[in-house]
Amino acid sequence: VTGLGQHFLIEYHGCNPEILDNLDLVKDIMISAAKYSGATILNTFLHKFSPQGVSGVVVIAESHLAIHTWPEYKYAAVDIFTCGTNVDPWVAFNIMKERLQSTEASTREISRGKIPYQEIKKTGQGFL
Amino acid sequence: VTGLGQHFLIEYHGCNPEILDNLDLVKDIMISAAKYSGATILNTFLHKFSPQGVSGVVVIAESHLAIHTWPEYKYAAVDIFTCGTNVDPWVAFNIMKERLQSTEASTREISRGKIPYQEIKKTGQGFL
Repeated sequence: VTGLGQHFLIEYHGCNPEILDNLDLVKDIMISAAKYSGATILNTFLHKFSPQGVSGVVVIAESHLAIHTWPEYKYAAVDIFTCGTNVDPWVAFNIMKERLQSTEASTREISRGKIPYQEIKKTGQGFL
Repeated sequence: VTGLGQHFLIEYHGCNPEILDNLDLVKDIMISAAKYSGATILNTFLHKFSPQGVSGVVVIAESHLAIHTWPEYKYAAVDIFTCGTNVDPWVAFNIMKERLQSTEASTREISRGKIPYQEIKKTGQGFL
């Protein structure tokens, strides 16, 4: 582990636009992705835009998943922030890729919260 | 504009740990940051962890702000996802830096949703 958190920034291109514009489906996909990746869901909030698009956030005990969709471009932006080792973001990545029917998906994996050694020493916690 | 969205990944080090562990204060800081940066708030959700730490998400019409705090490391991870030009993430960045009393703050600015030219042509929208 190189930081307190791991942040996946995922680009889903070539998705099914009808799925991207369906709030209930997007909600179900997000919840499935969170659950199967090992996360504990604390709350979910989704919003349907007019004329199109959905935004959604799933707050998990291990941080969050968020989605923003552009059906007109068959595109969804997803980010998954996790801490600890209980959650496997790749499981969420694959579930969402399949269920959004994305033909081209990619992710950036960014390490968050690199704590200076002096601070770690103070807390006496050695998990970094 | 080089993409549909703009994603700030912000690292706040050297924060005041009492502020980082205070749900009401963190909530107020997030709401202020969203409002003053020009965002329209749709919903907020915050959670206090035991023994310490706060997670929070503000869903805005222009996407989202999220925070995860580690008082024991005086550290907060924030991300701000915006689309369009109404929201100035730098305003949010500065408000949060000041109110979390961060002595060392940095951000990565990542362009999200670069749409292939063929897709843009189909929609007839030329704003990219």
